[in-house]
Amino acid sequence: MEGKGILIVVSGFSGSGKGTLMRRLLEKYDNYALSVSATTRSPRPGEEEGKAYFFKTVDEFEKMIAKDELIEYARYVDNYYGTPRVYVEEKLREGRDVILEIEIQGALKVKEQFPDTLLLFVTPPTAAELRSRLTGRGTETMEVIESRLRRAEEEADSMKYYDYLIINDKLEECVAEVHSIIQGEHRRGFRNKTFMENIKKELKGE
Amino acid sequence: MEGKGILIVVSGFSGSGKGTLMRRLLEKYDNYALSVSATTRSPRPGEEEGKAYFFKTVDEFEKMIAKDELIEYARYVDNYYGTPRVYVEEKLREGRDVILEIEIQGALKVKEQFPDTLLLFVTPPTAAELRSRLTGRGTETMEVIESRLRRAEEEADSMKYYDYLIINDKLEECVAEVHSIIQGEHRRGFRNKTFMENIKKELKGE
Repeated sequence: MEGKGILIVVSGFSGSGKGTLMRRLLEKYDNYALSVSATTRSPRPGEEEGKAYFFKTVDEFEKMIAKDELIEYARYVDNYYGTPRVYVEEKLREGRDVILEIEIQGALKVKEQFPDTLLLFVTPPTAAELRSRLTGRGTETMEVIESRLRRAEEEADSMKYYDYLIINDKLEECVAEVHSIIQGEHRRGFRNKTFMENIKKELKGE
Repeated sequence: MEGKGILIVVSGFSGSGKGTLMRRLLEKYDNYALSVSATTRSPRPGEEEGKAYFFKTVDEFEKMIAKDELIEYARYVDNYYGTPRVYVEEKLREGRDVILEIEIQGALKVKEQFPDTLLLFVTPPTAAELRSRLTGRGTETMEVIESRLRRAEEEADSMKYYDYLIINDKLEECVAEVHSIIQGEHRRGFRNKTFMENIKKELKGE
């Protein structure tokens, strides 16, 4: 109603299928724009500039940080990853809902800066299913399994900061559900302050 | 997921069509139970005990108050109206979403007691439309119009306490939207604490 898009951050357990989920959401509905991250890591074969990532040198990236041109950024394994501010703000102004697929740390930073951000956490349907995906089918070393479990444990502790739990069981149903949750969010009271103000003014005969 | 129903309070401007909206919602979907109010006013022709209202004497009603058998109650024009606790709690336990159609004062009292209550506020699609419904078509006395506008002004001040604004433009679309909002609410993080706890336990190997 306010003609303004919602900033949506999607995180989730490894193995939750959140990437596929988001891809289908964007294929199926026109409402959404997916934010493209900037990174200093080298492009892998087939990765296009501005599609997979905006590829930057360390120097360029650090200038973006200095100029506050990133909503959030983080360093993983010696590479920077971040969310360019311009694209996100432009799409929101156009009324598109903008989706960021980022890790929990980044998600919470975004929420701090933009308190109206909608946080979605994607998870397999059961704890047993999650555990079995993380421990693998006997093909992984104990070390890999342990590291996955530790990571998931940390992530599980942060689920409570998310607005919604997205249970990814059947893909197409889940895509429809995510769409419906986001559409419902447009009706939230706090996202419709202008509408409320207009009603109050009209009733006072202003 | 938790197998627990949501308590939903619906309020709205006079002329918002919230009564019709709720009736259609209940006809169309099996998920919902409508709470029946208790009142001390006399039954009107055709009003059945336990359907329109539970009809009580003043003495009976005041005993219900004393025994804390009402979630909320209020007095209008010398009659008591209230929401019996037993029915609501029983239906919630059965996993039904229970709908209370009550005034703002009562709504806020319910929310105080049950912080997980979902508050929906129904409004016509525009301020102009609301104003025109309230002022009527030249068939009302100034007094009636003034009293409606004052009431709506008060109500508009309290809209901000509601979780969602329900814009009642086209009835069937609006019914589907309300259903979808409520279903989405079942995925809220704070409504799924058991699910989160289970995941944490499994990951820790408990």
